[in-house]
Amino acid sequence: MSSSYGENLEVTLFGESHGPAVGMTLQGIPAGEAVDTEELCRFLARRSGAPELSTARREEDVPEFMSGLRDGVTCGTPLTVVLRNRDVRSGDYEELKNRPRPGHADYTAAVKYRGFQDPAGGGHASGRLTAALCAAGGICLQLLRKEGIRVLSRIVSVGTVSDRGELTEEAAARPFPTADEERGSAMREEILRAKEAGDSVGGVIECEIRGLPAGVGDPIFGGLENRIARAVFGIPGIKGIEFGSGFAGSTLRGSENNDSFRMEDGQVVTAANHAGGILGGISTGMPVVFRAAVKPTPSISAEQETVDLSAGENVTIRIRGRHDPCIVPRAVPCVEAAAALAVFDALLGRRKETVR
Amino acid sequence: MSSSYGENLEVTLFGESHGPAVGMTLQGIPAGEAVDTEELCRFLARRSGAPELSTARREEDVPEFMSGLRDGVTCGTPLTVVLRNRDVRSGDYEELKNRPRPGHADYTAAVKYRGFQDPAGGGHASGRLTAALCAAGGICLQLLRKEGIRVLSRIVSVGTVSDRGELTEEAAARPFPTADEERGSAMREEILRAKEAGDSVGGVIECEIRGLPAGVGDPIFGGLENRIARAVFGIPGIKGIEFGSGFAGSTLRGSENNDSFRMEDGQVVTAANHAGGILGGISTGMPVVFRAAVKPTPSISAEQETVDLSAGENVTIRIRGRHDPCIVPRAVPCVEAAAALAVFDALLGRRKETVR
Amino acid sequence: MSSSYGENLEVTLFGESHGPAVGMTLQGIPAGEAVDTEELCRFLARRSGAPELSTARREEDVPEFMSGLRDGVTCGTPLTVVLRNRDVRSGDYEELKNRPRPGHADYTAAVKYRGFQDPAGGGHASGRLTAALCAAGGICLQLLRKEGIRVLSRIVSVGTVSDRGELTEEAAARPFPTADEERGSAMREEILRAKEAGDSVGGVIECEIRGLPAGVGDPIFGGLENRIARAVFGIPGIKGIEFGSGFAGSTLRGSENNDSFRMEDGQVVTAANHAGGILGGISTGMPVVFRAAVKPTPSISAEQETVDLSAGENVTIRIRGRHDPCIVPRAVPCVEAAAALAVFDALLGRRKETVR
Amino acid sequence: MSSSYGENLEVTLFGESHGPAVGMTLQGIPAGEAVDTEELCRFLARRSGAPELSTARREEDVPEFMSGLRDGVTCGTPLTVVLRNRDVRSGDYEELKNRPRPGHADYTAAVKYRGFQDPAGGGHASGRLTAALCAAGGICLQLLRKEGIRVLSRIVSVGTVSDRGELTEEAAARPFPTADEERGSAMREEILRAKEAGDSVGGVIECEIRGLPAGVGDPIFGGLENRIARAVFGIPGIKGIEFGSGFAGSTLRGSENNDSFRMEDGQVVTAANHAGGILGGISTGMPVVFRAAVKPTPSISAEQETVDLSAGENVTIRIRGRHDPCIVPRAVPCVEAAAALAVFDALLGRRKETVR
Repeated sequence: MSSSYGENLEVTLFGESHGPAVGMTLQGIPAGEAVDTEELCRFLARRSGAPELSTARREEDVPEFMSGLRDGVTCGTPLTVVLRNRDVRSGDYEELKNRPRPGHADYTAAVKYRGFQDPAGGGHASGRLTAALCAAGGICLQLLRKEGIRVLSRIVSVGTVSDRGELTEEAAARPFPTADEERGSAMREEILRAKEAGDSVGGVIECEIRGLPAGVGDPIFGGLENRIARAVFGIPGIKGIEFGSGFAGSTLRGSENNDSFRMEDGQVVTAANHAGGILGGISTGMPVVFRAAVKPTPSISAEQETVDLSAGENVTIRIRGRHDPCIVPRAVPCVEAAAALAVFDALLGRRKETVR
Repeated sequence: MSSSYGENLEVTLFGESHGPAVGMTLQGIPAGEAVDTEELCRFLARRSGAPELSTARREEDVPEFMSGLRDGVTCGTPLTVVLRNRDVRSGDYEELKNRPRPGHADYTAAVKYRGFQDPAGGGHASGRLTAALCAAGGICLQLLRKEGIRVLSRIVSVGTVSDRGELTEEAAARPFPTADEERGSAMREEILRAKEAGDSVGGVIECEIRGLPAGVGDPIFGGLENRIARAVFGIPGIKGIEFGSGFAGSTLRGSENNDSFRMEDGQVVTAANHAGGILGGISTGMPVVFRAAVKPTPSISAEQETVDLSAGENVTIRIRGRHDPCIVPRAVPCVEAAAALAVFDALLGRRKETVR
Repeated sequence: MSSSYGENLEVTLFGESHGPAVGMTLQGIPAGEAVDTEELCRFLARRSGAPELSTARREEDVPEFMSGLRDGVTCGTPLTVVLRNRDVRSGDYEELKNRPRPGHADYTAAVKYRGFQDPAGGGHASGRLTAALCAAGGICLQLLRKEGIRVLSRIVSVGTVSDRGELTEEAAARPFPTADEERGSAMREEILRAKEAGDSVGGVIECEIRGLPAGVGDPIFGGLENRIARAVFGIPGIKGIEFGSGFAGSTLRGSENNDSFRMEDGQVVTAANHAGGILGGISTGMPVVFRAAVKPTPSISAEQETVDLSAGENVTIRIRGRHDPCIVPRAVPCVEAAAALAVFDALLGRRKETVR
Repeated sequence: MSSSYGENLEVTLFGESHGPAVGMTLQGIPAGEAVDTEELCRFLARRSGAPELSTARREEDVPEFMSGLRDGVTCGTPLTVVLRNRDVRSGDYEELKNRPRPGHADYTAAVKYRGFQDPAGGGHASGRLTAALCAAGGICLQLLRKEGIRVLSRIVSVGTVSDRGELTEEAAARPFPTADEERGSAMREEILRAKEAGDSVGGVIECEIRGLPAGVGDPIFGGLENRIARAVFGIPGIKGIEFGSGFAGSTLRGSENNDSFRMEDGQVVTAANHAGGILGGISTGMPVVFRAAVKPTPSISAEQETVDLSAGENVTIRIRGRHDPCIVPRAVPCVEAAAALAVFDALLGRRKETVR
C-alpha cells in the first residue's frame, strides 16, 4: 500500500497535517534491540529545524510508543509511535479548499479523493508526515550504527550556491551541514534573501552510507538504487535522485567511469567510486553515495494564479499560513531516515541468504 | 521479491544471459485484452538495436507465450512469455569468473551468491533481462494506448552531445529518436568514435507519458515518482532519474518553479510543467516527464585493473566477448517498458477507488 | 508482515495486551465512505462480551481515530484507530514469565523473541488484539452492507452441545446467537459448568456472507478460502476451518456433493450449496459459508504441569488472573470481522477487472 | 497476486490445463543449494498417480529448468521450471464451454473473466497446476530435509473408510500411504466402486512436519496455521483444514486439550500434541500436524443438471473427457508441497531474527 514501505521490514505512515496526530508502525525489527529515545528525540528535533530558517510552526516531537517497546528494548512485535499534532490552525487553510495552491498536492488530492481529503495543510501529503518517517528511520539509524554502518549527509547546494569539498563526519555533524562553512553561510543567506522576497529556494542533498558490507541489495527491482529511490521519493518535494557519478557520469567514457578493483588490506576496494557503491543493485563495500534534488518550497507569499475548482474559473490566491522558505535543511534528516529504512530492509534480506 | 515488480499487477523476470531462456510472468492483466504479438515483436526488435551501434550478438526475440493468452486475447490469468537465448557463447566469459569486470555486477554477485551465480554474461544481472522487461512493458504499452495514453521518449544526450528542441511524436518515432536530427547524427558519431577507441559512452533518455488523467498515483511511497523510479532502476546501467524540472529545478525559486493552474476548455491545466505532471505523487493531467541517466557501458576493450578473487591479488584483464559501445539507444524502449509497467500498475490501483 | 493482512487493502494490528494501547491502521479504503462510529462501538461491545460468560476485565472500547477520518467520512488515506488499554494489571503475570502457561503462546514467544517479548497477558499474541481486528473489520462490515453484502454468524456448538436448524438473520441477531434458543441456553450452561469447575470449553462458529455477487475471489492462492482462512486464523484459538460441506463433504460421493446449476429469476443459482458459495476460489453468488473451530480457553484454574525456562526443570503452576471459560461468544464478532476484511479485500480486487 | 505465494520466498504458478505448458518461478531460494532433479521427478511422478486409480491422461512430468540452476546447484536467482502439457485433447471440452460442470470452476471463471478464460480442462483452475506446485514444493522439501525437517503424510480416509493407527515414516512411504494396509485396500476398493458407478469419492489427508525447531512462524496473520492454510487451499478441491485436535478439540475441555510442558533430554516438549505443534502461530518444536479435507472429484459420468450460459436456460450435461474417481492419492504430494513451501518460507523469515 502506498503509505507503507519495505520488503523485509514494513513501515506504515499515518496521519494528516492538522489531524490529531501523525505516526508510524514499524514491523520486522528483531527483538532485543535497545532504542535510545533521547537520541531519537534529538533526531526528530533536527527535522523540526532551526527557527529562523524554517516554519514558525513549532513541532517539538516527542515520540509516544504505543506498542513494541518494553523498558526501552524492542519486543520483536510492531513498533507504533504516535506524534501528536500541536499548534494546529486549520482556519488558515479553509479558504484554500477549492483553490489549490500551485506546486502543492491540493489539486491532485482533490481529484483523487473526490473532495473527501483533509485539505488542511496538505493533509496526508504534508511534509508533516516526514516526522513519522524520521521516527521510523531514526530507529533504523540506531540499529545500523550498531552494525558499524553510518548514514551521513550534507547540503550540496541551495539555489545557485554550491558546497565545496568532501562530505566528512565533521561536515555532517554541523547544524547546517556543509563541508565548507563559508558556503554554508552563503546558502543560509540565500534562504533568508528568498524569505525576505516572500519567495523560496530549493537545493540538493548528498547522502553517504558508510560501512555497508559488500553483497547487500538484490538484482533488478530490488537493487539498492530501486530501494533507496522508492524510499527517498516518499519525502515531499524530492524531484530527482542520482547515484555515484549519476547524470554527470553519463557524459564520461567507460574508461573514465569504471572503477578499477584492487586489493587493499586483504579487502577488495575500488580506486574511485563512480558507481556510488552499487553495482548491479548490490553493494560493493564502498560507501553508497547518492544525491537528491529538493524543489523550492511551493508555499510562497506572492500572489499566484490558480483555479476555483467549484466555480471552474481562474482566480488568484495569496498563501498566508506558515511555511519554510527552504525545506532543504529540514529534509536532510528525512533523507537519512529514508536511506536508513532502505538499507536496513536490504540488510535484513541479506540475512535470509545465510548459509546453514 | 527482487525480480518482481508491481502492486496491482506483478511482473516477475527470470533467466540468465547464457542460460536456456529469459522470460517473464505478468499477473493482473484483465481478461479480454487483445495483444498484438507482431507489434510486440517490433517493440522487442527496437531493444535489439541497430547492428552498427550495438553488440554483434543477434537477439531476434520472438515471444513464446506459455500461458494466459488464447487466440491473441488475455485470459485474465498469468501471462508467461519465454524468450530463448540463441547464439550463446559461454566460453568467452569463463576466464573472467574470478576476475570481475570493472563496472559490472560480477564482483557484487560473487559476494552475494558466494560464487554460485551464473557468471556468463552477467547471469541474471545481464542487460539481456531487459528483453523480458520489454515483453511485459510492451504489453502494457498496448493496453495504455487503448486508454489514450502514450509513452514517448527520446535521447537527450550521448556523452557530451545534447539534443535540442522538444520531444514530439515524430522525434520519438525516429530509429535514433532525437528532436534534432543533426544532433542525432552527432550522437551516433560520438558512439562510433567511442567504439573505434575501444571505449564506450553513456547518455540521458527523456520519457513522457501523455494522456494520463489527473488523479493517478498515490501518496508517499506509492507516488508516481517512487513507482517509476523503482521500475526504471531495474534497467542495468541507470544511475539517475529526475522528474519535471528535476535537478535544475532545485536552483530555481518557488515563484519560478511553481506551475500556475488555469482553466482550459473546461479542464484544469498548468501553464508550465516543472512538476513533470506529478504533484504529491499523483498525476496532474499534464504529461508525466522524466529523464534517466545511463552510464557508459562498462565493457570496454582497453586493459583494466581488477583483482583475482581466488588468489586475492591485483591483476589486469582485457574483455573480449561482444558489447555495445553505448546502450542508450537500446535502453530507450526499456525505459518506455518500465514506465508503462509503473503507470499501468498505478492505473489499475486507481480503479479500486471507483465510486459504487 | 505477520501483523498485516490484505492485498488490495492492508490492515496492520499493533499493541500488547498490557501496553498503552492496541490499535490498527487500515489502508485502501476509498475516500468518501461514511463510518458510523456508534455502530462501530456497538460492534466492539459485542466482542467485549456479556459479563457472566467472559473475563472480569472490562474492555469498553471507544475507538480513537488518529487519522483518515474527517467529519465521520473516510479521506482515502490510512485510517488509524487506537484503543487504550484500561484496567491493566501486569502483576498478575509477572511470576509466570519463565513458566509458560500450557496452551498459550508464552513458550513459543519466549523462544522466538529470546525473552524480549512482553509477557504480560500474552503480549502481542493476546486475544486483546482482536479488539483492533474488530475495529478494522467493523468498518469493512459497514462498507459491505452498503453494497448489499451481509455477514452473519452463529454458534454451532459449545463443547458437546450443538445448535439445531438454520442460520437466520434473527438467530444472528441474538445476544447468544444460535438458531435454537434452547440449545443456546444449554450451551451457556455448558460454559457455566466449565467455569464452576475452573475449566473451559471450546466450540464451533458458523459464518455466512450473503449478497456477494458471483465472480469475486481469485484462482489458486487468492481464492476466497485462502483469503478467509488466512484472516480467520489470525484470531487466537482458531484451530480449524471448513467451507461448505467441508470435512463431512469428503465422505460424500461426487453425485451427492456437486451442486447442480439452474436458472432462477434470470440468475444462475445452485440447488444446494455444498460448495459453500465458492468454486475454484471464486464466489458463485450463493452465500459463502464456513465454520471455524475454537479451542477451549487455555487459561484454566486447575494446577498444570509446565517447565521453568530459566531453571530448565519441571514445575507446576496455577493461573490466577482473569480469563474466559469460553471465548466462543466473543469470537463470533471477531470471525465476522476477519471475514469482512477478506471479502472486502477481494471485492476491491474485483474492481481492477472492470472493463473500460 | 493470486497465483503467487510467499513472503520470504515467492512462488508464481502459471499455465492452463490444455495450453502449451504449466510451470512456476520460485524466488528467494538461497544460492548454493543442490537440487536433485531425479528425486524431483519421482516426486512429480507421485502426483501423476497410479494408473488404475487416476485419470487416463498421462502426465510424465520432466521439469525443464529455464533459469536459476547451474550444474544442478541454485544460483540464488529465480528458478523457473516449465512442464510441457502433452496429450492435450481440447475437443473434449469445447461443447462444455457454455455449460459449466457442477462442482468445477467453469461457471465462476466464466463470470470473473467474462468468457475470456481458457475453458479447456478448467484452464488455470485445473488440478494440472498442482504439477507446478509440486515442482516448487518438491525443491523446498529437499532443502528442508537438509535441515533435518521432514514432511510426511497419509490418507486418513476415503469416503467413509478411515485409517487406523499412527502416521509413521513407513506408512508415508507406501504407494497408497495409510498406517493400516488393510484399510488402505478398503479405501482403494471404495475408489474403484465409485469409478464403476461413474461416480467419485473424497477423503482426508493428514500431514506432519517433523524436526521443525521451536520459534518458527509469526503472530497473528503470519502464524503457521495462516501460512499453511493459505498454501493448502491453493490445491483445487480442498475444502477444510484443521490443526492438531482441530474440530474434535473444540468439544474438549481446556484441561483435556492443553498440552503440558515438560523437560526431556534438556528440551522442552509437550506431553500430548493437541496444539498440532503450533501455539500463537509459532512452532513448539513438536511435530506440526494438520488434516485437509478433499471433496469428491466433481467430474462424474452421470448426467448432471446445469445451465446454458448463452441461452440462459436449464440443460443437462454428461462429462466425457478423462477424470479421477478420487483425487485424494494424487493430492497427497500436493499437500506436502504446499506445506513445504509454507514452512520453508517461515524458516527463511526466522533467519531475519538472528542476533548479530
